[in-house]
Amino acid sequence: MDAKTNQFMALDASYEEAEIVVFGAPFDGTCSYRPGTRFAPNAMRVHSEGIEVYSPYQDSSLEDIQVFDSGDIDLPFGNKQRVLDMVAEHTKKILEDGKKPVMLGGEHLLTLPAVLEVHKQYEELVVVQLDAHADLREDYMGENLSHATVIRRIHDTLGDHRIVQLGIRSGTKEEFAFGKEHTIFRPFGLETRSFFEELKGKPIYLTIDLDVFDPSIFPGTGTPEPGGVDFREWMSWFSNFKSLNIVAADVMELSPDYDHSGVSTILACKVLREVLLGMSSCK
Amino acid sequence: MDAKTNQFMALDASYEEAEIVVFGAPFDGTCSYRPGTRFAPNAMRVHSEGIEVYSPYQDSSLEDIQVFDSGDIDLPFGNKQRVLDMVAEHTKKILEDGKKPVMLGGEHLLTLPAVLEVHKQYEELVVVQLDAHADLREDYMGENLSHATVIRRIHDTLGDHRIVQLGIRSGTKEEFAFGKEHTIFRPFGLETRSFFEELKGKPIYLTIDLDVFDPSIFPGTGTPEPGGVDFREWMSWFSNFKSLNIVAADVMELSPDYDHSGVSTILACKVLREVLLGMSSCK
Amino acid sequence: MDAKTNQFMALDASYEEAEIVVFGAPFDGTCSYRPGTRFAPNAMRVHSEGIEVYSPYQDSSLEDIQVFDSGDIDLPFGNKQRVLDMVAEHTKKILEDGKKPVMLGGEHLLTLPAVLEVHKQYEELVVVQLDAHADLREDYMGENLSHATVIRRIHDTLGDHRIVQLGIRSGTKEEFAFGKEHTIFRPFGLETRSFFEELKGKPIYLTIDLDVFDPSIFPGTGTPEPGGVDFREWMSWFSNFKSLNIVAADVMELSPDYDHSGVSTILACKVLREVLLGMSSCK
Amino acid sequence: MDAKTNQFMALDASYEEAEIVVFGAPFDGTCSYRPGTRFAPNAMRVHSEGIEVYSPYQDSSLEDIQVFDSGDIDLPFGNKQRVLDMVAEHTKKILEDGKKPVMLGGEHLLTLPAVLEVHKQYEELVVVQLDAHADLREDYMGENLSHATVIRRIHDTLGDHRIVQLGIRSGTKEEFAFGKEHTIFRPFGLETRSFFEELKGKPIYLTIDLDVFDPSIFPGTGTPEPGGVDFREWMSWFSNFKSLNIVAADVMELSPDYDHSGVSTILACKVLREVLLGMSSCK
Amino acid sequence: MDAKTNQFMALDASYEEAEIVVFGAPFDGTCSYRPGTRFAPNAMRVHSEGIEVYSPYQDSSLEDIQVFDSGDIDLPFGNKQRVLDMVAEHTKKILEDGKKPVMLGGEHLLTLPAVLEVHKQYEELVVVQLDAHADLREDYMGENLSHATVIRRIHDTLGDHRIVQLGIRSGTKEEFAFGKEHTIFRPFGLETRSFFEELKGKPIYLTIDLDVFDPSIFPGTGTPEPGGVDFREWMSWFSNFKSLNIVAADVMELSPDYDHSGVSTILACKVLREVLLGMSSCK
Amino acid sequence: MDAKTNQFMALDASYEEAEIVVFGAPFDGTCSYRPGTRFAPNAMRVHSEGIEVYSPYQDSSLEDIQVFDSGDIDLPFGNKQRVLDMVAEHTKKILEDGKKPVMLGGEHLLTLPAVLEVHKQYEELVVVQLDAHADLREDYMGENLSHATVIRRIHDTLGDHRIVQLGIRSGTKEEFAFGKEHTIFRPFGLETRSFFEELKGKPIYLTIDLDVFDPSIFPGTGTPEPGGVDFREWMSWFSNFKSLNIVAADVMELSPDYDHSGVSTILACKVLREVLLGMSSCK
Repeated sequence: MDAKTNQFMALDASYEEAEIVVFGAPFDGTCSYRPGTRFAPNAMRVHSEGIEVYSPYQDSSLEDIQVFDSGDIDLPFGNKQRVLDMVAEHTKKILEDGKKPVMLGGEHLLTLPAVLEVHKQYEELVVVQLDAHADLREDYMGENLSHATVIRRIHDTLGDHRIVQLGIRSGTKEEFAFGKEHTIFRPFGLETRSFFEELKGKPIYLTIDLDVFDPSIFPGTGTPEPGGVDFREWMSWFSNFKSLNIVAADVMELSPDYDHSGVSTILACKVLREVLLGMSSCK
Repeated sequence: MDAKTNQFMALDASYEEAEIVVFGAPFDGTCSYRPGTRFAPNAMRVHSEGIEVYSPYQDSSLEDIQVFDSGDIDLPFGNKQRVLDMVAEHTKKILEDGKKPVMLGGEHLLTLPAVLEVHKQYEELVVVQLDAHADLREDYMGENLSHATVIRRIHDTLGDHRIVQLGIRSGTKEEFAFGKEHTIFRPFGLETRSFFEELKGKPIYLTIDLDVFDPSIFPGTGTPEPGGVDFREWMSWFSNFKSLNIVAADVMELSPDYDHSGVSTILACKVLREVLLGMSSCK
Repeated sequence: MDAKTNQFMALDASYEEAEIVVFGAPFDGTCSYRPGTRFAPNAMRVHSEGIEVYSPYQDSSLEDIQVFDSGDIDLPFGNKQRVLDMVAEHTKKILEDGKKPVMLGGEHLLTLPAVLEVHKQYEELVVVQLDAHADLREDYMGENLSHATVIRRIHDTLGDHRIVQLGIRSGTKEEFAFGKEHTIFRPFGLETRSFFEELKGKPIYLTIDLDVFDPSIFPGTGTPEPGGVDFREWMSWFSNFKSLNIVAADVMELSPDYDHSGVSTILACKVLREVLLGMSSCK
Repeated sequence: MDAKTNQFMALDASYEEAEIVVFGAPFDGTCSYRPGTRFAPNAMRVHSEGIEVYSPYQDSSLEDIQVFDSGDIDLPFGNKQRVLDMVAEHTKKILEDGKKPVMLGGEHLLTLPAVLEVHKQYEELVVVQLDAHADLREDYMGENLSHATVIRRIHDTLGDHRIVQLGIRSGTKEEFAFGKEHTIFRPFGLETRSFFEELKGKPIYLTIDLDVFDPSIFPGTGTPEPGGVDFREWMSWFSNFKSLNIVAADVMELSPDYDHSGVSTILACKVLREVLLGMSSCK
Repeated sequence: MDAKTNQFMALDASYEEAEIVVFGAPFDGTCSYRPGTRFAPNAMRVHSEGIEVYSPYQDSSLEDIQVFDSGDIDLPFGNKQRVLDMVAEHTKKILEDGKKPVMLGGEHLLTLPAVLEVHKQYEELVVVQLDAHADLREDYMGENLSHATVIRRIHDTLGDHRIVQLGIRSGTKEEFAFGKEHTIFRPFGLETRSFFEELKGKPIYLTIDLDVFDPSIFPGTGTPEPGGVDFREWMSWFSNFKSLNIVAADVMELSPDYDHSGVSTILACKVLREVLLGMSSCK
Repeated sequence: MDAKTNQFMALDASYEEAEIVVFGAPFDGTCSYRPGTRFAPNAMRVHSEGIEVYSPYQDSSLEDIQVFDSGDIDLPFGNKQRVLDMVAEHTKKILEDGKKPVMLGGEHLLTLPAVLEVHKQYEELVVVQLDAHADLREDYMGENLSHATVIRRIHDTLGDHRIVQLGIRSGTKEEFAFGKEHTIFRPFGLETRSFFEELKGKPIYLTIDLDVFDPSIFPGTGTPEPGGVDFREWMSWFSNFKSLNIVAADVMELSPDYDHSGVSTILACKVLREVLLGMSSCK
C-alpha cells in the first residue's frame, strides 16, 4: 500500500510526461506556529475541487495539458538561507529536465532563488511582476533578503528595464523613484500596451503576488492594500498576455486562514488554473 | 392569543389582496444539521430590517405594492421527491389564485418544480437565469436531479432557445457547448440587447442564483466563483429588464452562515426588494 | 393561505391548551442596526432543530407537555418605557389566563416588568437570579432603568431577602456589599443548600442571565465574564431546583452573532428545553 | 517616566507646529459593552502600520506635513448631549488655534457639533457628505438627534444648497424628495462636475461616512448597503476634489469588529492618509 | 521526481513495517462543496504540526512506534454504498496484512463498514463508543444507513451487550430505552468501572465521535451538544482504558471549518496521538 | 493640547506615586504585518472596560492601589537583540525606582531579559512559570533565543531548583526529563502544596504564559494545547499564591485576533487585574 499524494485539481501527468511542474514552497519566515502563507499550497490543493478543470475564458481544460504537482518542498523552517537554496535546487532540477516550474508560495522572497535559476537558463529573461507593493527596498529593517526587497535583489542581477512592474500601489517614495528609473514601471493597473510588442518572443518569468488583487476579492493576505484589480480585469489582461513565452511562474502570498469565507483560496486556484493553461504549449 | 408570523420587511398585505406571494423553500439536500441555504429565507426576513422599503433606483416602495409572505414550506428534509412535489403544489396554488409566486431558496434544484408549474400556466414561458454556473449537466455524480443539472432538466421540457443564460462563468466543456447550441447563451455578463425586443410581452420566469454576483460582494454561498457582477451592474441590467412581463421569480443559493459580516444576506434582501418592485403591476 | 409561524422546537399546543406560554422580547436598547440580544429569540427558534425534544436528564419530552410559543412581541425600538409596558401587558395577559410565562430576551432589563406583573399575582414571589453580574447598581451612567440596575429595581418592590442571587462574579464593591446585606447572596456558584427548604412551596420567578455560564461554553453575549459554570453544573443544580414551584421564568442576554460556531445559541436552546420541562406540572 | 501615547502612523508634530489636528470621538450611542464604532479610532491607530506613510496617488508623504493626533476625547458614554458638547469644545479649541480639525468617528451624529463649530468660523461653509444614507430624516424613532437625522439638523442651520450629498443610495421617499429640493443632491455616485467650479475658494467641511464604500471593500460598518463605490473611484474623485479648500473633515462609522479580515480598518486608514495629504497646504 | 505525500505528524514507517495504519475517509454525505467532515483528515495532517510527537501523559512518543498513514481513500462522493464498500475493502486489506486500522472521519456512518470488517476477524469484538448521541435510531428520515443509525446497525450484527456506549447525552426516548436494554449503556460520562474487568483481553474497536467532548473545547462539529467531557476527563479515562486490547479505532465528525480558532482540529490531533500511542504494543 | 494616553482600566497613578508599573512589550518576532501577540497590550487596554475594577475574589479594587501604565515600549521590530535590551532597560529603570514591573507580552522570550534584570536586584529570586509548554529546549530550529527555549536560558543563569513549572502539558521527551531533574516540576496542574512553605518570603517573578489556560476559555494564542486549567482553578491557586512576595510579573502570549469572540482578551484582563491586586502591598 502506498501513501496517497495530494494533487492540485486534475493534475495527473507523471513527472516524465509533464510539460509544467507545480510545487509548493510553504515558507513564511515566521518562527511561530499559526496561519500564514505557509498553509497556502495545501489549501489550494484541497479547495481546488470547488472550481472546474475547464476554463471558459480560454476554452481549454487542465485535462488537455500535462502538469505534474510534485507537492511541497520540505523546507527547514528556521533557516532562511537553506530555504532559498532548496527552492533554487528544486527549480533547477525542473528546468534541467526541460520543464516549466510553477511555484505556489509561501512568501514573495522565494521568488528570488527561482528567478535566479531561471535566469541562468534564459539569459534574456524578463520578469513580469503583478503586485500591490513595489518590493524595491534596498533593505527592510536591516535585512536585505525580505519580501519587501525581493524585486530589488532581482534587479541587482538582471539590471535595468528587465523587470515589468504592474499594479503597484504601495511603497516608499524611494521605491517609486527607483521603479520609475530602473524598471518598466506601470503602477496602479495592468497596462502593458506600450511595450507589449517588445515582450514577444522573450522568455518571461511571471510572478504574481496575489495582493495585486483588491482586498474585496482577496482579503486573505498579510498586507491587503485597497485599490487593486478584480478578477475580470486580471483575466482581460492575461488573455493577451498568455500569448507570450512564459517559461516559469509563481503565485504567492495567499494566507488562507485570514479569509474565513474561503474566497481568497478559490481566487488563487482560479488564477493558477488560468496561468497553467496560458503557459502550456497545447493552448 | 395568536402565534406571531415572520414577514419579509413591510409585507403586510393579506393573501387575498396580494398580487405577489413570497415563500421560503428551505432545502439544501444535505442530511446533517448545519449552515446551508436552508437558513436563507429566515435570515433574509430577520435582516431585511437593515435596508429601507423604498428603492431610490425605482422610486417606489414596498409599501405601495401588494405582497404576501406565506412563510416557509415545511419541507420533509430527507425526501427529495416529496420536497419537489411540495414546491410544485405551493407554486400551483399561488398561480391558480391569480398571483405571482416568488420563491426564496434553498438550493437551485427547487427552481425545477416551480418553473414546470409556471410553464403549465404560461405555454410561452421564457426562463431567464442569472448564475455563475451553467447547471446544464445531464447528470451529476449519477444523479439527474441536482443543483448542477437543474437547467438541463428545464430544457428537457421547454426545449431549445427558451432559456436565457446570463453571467455564466463556470461549467464543463460539454455544458458550454450545450449552452451555445441550445439556449440563448450570453456567458460572463448580463448582455441582453441582441434579443431584448423578442422578450417583450413574453411571460418570464426570472431565476437568480445569487452566485452570479462576484464573491467580493456575495461570499455567502456554497460555490463562490470569482469574476461575477457587482450590485450596480445588476441594478443597471434590471432597470431595463423590469419593463418585461415577469410572472414568477426566485432568489436562490444564499448560505448566510458562510459570511460572518452579514453582507451577503443584505445583498439578497436588496435584490429581492428590487425584484418585487420590478414585478409589480403598480410600478 | 395563512402566513407561517415560527415556533420553538416541537411546541405545537394551542394557546388555549397550553400550560406554559413562551414569548420573545427582542430588545437590546441600542439605536443602531446590528447584532445583539434582539436577534436571540429568532436564532433560538431556528437552531432549536439542532437538539432533541427529549431530555435524558429529566426523562421527559417537550412532546409530553403543553407549551405555546406566541412569537416575538413587536417592540417599538426607540421607546424604552413603551417596551417595558408591552412586556408587562403581555405577561399580565398570560398570567390572567392561568398560564406560566417564559420570556426569551432580549436584554436583562426586560425582567423588571415581567417580575412586577408576576409579583402582582403572587405576593410571596421569590426571584431566583442566575447571573455573572449583580445588576444591583442604583443607577448606571445616570440611568436608573438599565441592564445593570434591574435587580436593584426589583429589590425596590420586593424588599429584602426575597431575591436569591447565584453565580455572581462581577460587580462594584457597593453592589457586593448591597447583595450581602439585602439579598440571599451566594456568589461564584450555584449553592442553594442552606436555604433550599425555605424555597419549597414559594412561587418562584427564575431569571437566567445566560452569562452566568462560563464564556468557554457561552461566548455569545455582550459582557462575557470568565469563571462561570458549565452545563453539567447548571443541570446538576437544576435537577434539584426544578422540584420547586416555578411560576414564571426567563432566559436572557444571548447575542447569537458574537459566536460564529453557534454553540451559544444551542446552549440557550438546551437550557430553555430543561426549564420548560422542569416548570411543567406534567413532570 | 511618561505614559506612552498612541498616534496615527508617523504623525509626530507637536500641537503647536501642527497645521492639522486629528482626534478620535469614540461614541456609538449604545449603552452596552461590545464592538461598534467606538472602537474605530483606536483600531485605525493600531492598524495604520499596515500601510505606508507615502501616497503614490498624491506623490506626497505624511512625513512632509504637520499633523498632530490628540488622541480620543474622553466621552461620557451615557450622556449624549454632553458628548456633543465635548466634540464642539474640542473642535472649537483647534479652530481657535488656527488649525484644521479632523475627527475619527464614532457615529455620524458627531458630525453635527463639529460642523456647527466650523460654521461659526466660516460663514460660507459648504458641507460635502459622502454617504450611503441620506441622513435627512426629521426624526428617527422619536429622536431628532440621531445618526439618521444628522444632515437634516445641519440643514436646519446652513439652509438650502449648502450641503453637497454624494453617493447616497438609501433613504425614505421623503428623504430623497427633501434632498432633491434642498441640497445639492447627486445620489448613486461621486459626480461633482456640474457644480465643481462654484465650490472653488469656498471653505469646505468634508464628512465621509465610510459606508459610502461598497460593502465588498468595507463590510465593517453597522448598516452596509450594496451598490457603493470602490477605492479607485473614490481616489479618482478625491484627486480633483483635494484642490479645494477643505478646512475640516471627518471619517466616520467604521465598526472594526464586524470585519474579521481587517480590510475595513485598512481602507479607513488609507482614506484618512489621503484626506490628510489633500487638506495640507504643503501639497 | 516523486509527488510528495502528506502524513500525520512524524509518521514515517513504511506500510510493511507498520503496526498501525491510519487512513482518512473524507465523506460527509452531502452533495454540495463546502465545509464538513470531509475536510477533517487533511486538516488534521496540516495542523498536527502544532502539537508535539511526545505525550507526557503516556511518556511515549510517536517516534517510538510504527504507524503508516496511507492518506485518504478516494471516495466517490455521490455514491453512499460504494463509499461504504471502499471503507470495508481498505479496512480488510489492513487487517489481512496483520495491522491495526485507524480511520479518520468523515461522518460516523463510516464506522459501520469498518466495524463489520473487524468483526469478521475478531468474533468476540466489543465496540466502545464515545459519543454525545446514541445513534441508535432504527431509521432517520426514512434512511436506515445514516450517522444517526450507525450504532443500531452495528447492533444488528453484534447483538446485545457487545456495544459499550459512553458519554451519550442526546437521543430520542426510544434510543435511550433501547440503549438501556440492549447495550452496555453509561450515558453522561465515561464511567467504565463496573464492567472494566470483563473487557480485559477482549478485542476492542474504539469509535470516538468527537462530539462526546463539550462544545466549549470542540465547537468544530455538525451537532454540538453542551454537557460533554473535557480533555482531562477523557485523558484520565483513556489512561486506564489503553491497557485493553484495542485492535481498531476511529476518530470521527471533526468539521474543521466551523471553528475558526482551529482548536477543534488540534484537539482531534491530540486525541489521535494518544489513541495511537495507547494502541501500540510498544507502550 | 497634549496627546492622549491609553491606560489599562482605572490605572491613574502617576509614575512617581506608583508601586507597580505596567508596560507593554508588543513583540512577536515575526517579520510580516498581521495579528499576533504584538497586538495584545493594546487589545487589553481597550477591552479592559468590559470588566470591573473591583475584584470580588480579593474584595479589593484597582482604585485602591497605585499602578502606572507606561504604555508600550517602542520595539524595533526586526532586531531581536535590541528588543531584548530595551525590555531589560525598561525593567531596570522601574526596579531602580523602587517599583514592581509587570510586563504585558508579546511573546514569551521577552521574559528572559525581564527575569535577568529582576535577578540582579533579587539574588534569591524564584521564577514561577505557568505555561502549557516547558520552554526548556536547548535550541529551537538552530536558535537558542526563542519562545521555546526561554526557561532553559533562565535556568542557565538561575540554576537548579529555582524555577517552579506549573501546568506544563507539552514538550519533548528531553524537556520533561530536564524539568524533572533541574526545576521544581509539577506538570498538568497548579499543585504547589509540597513546596509552598519554602516559597514564603522569597522574591518571586511570576510569569504567566496564558496558554496554561485551556483553549476552551483561551483560544486566542499561537499554540493552543487542550487539557489546561480554567479560570476558577487558576483563581483558586492564585488565592493562596498571592500571599507570597511577588516582586515582578508578566502576562504573555495573548494573540487577540485569533479569537473573534474577544473572550481571550477579557480573560487576560481579568488575570492581570487579579495579579495587580495580589502583588500590591495594599491588599
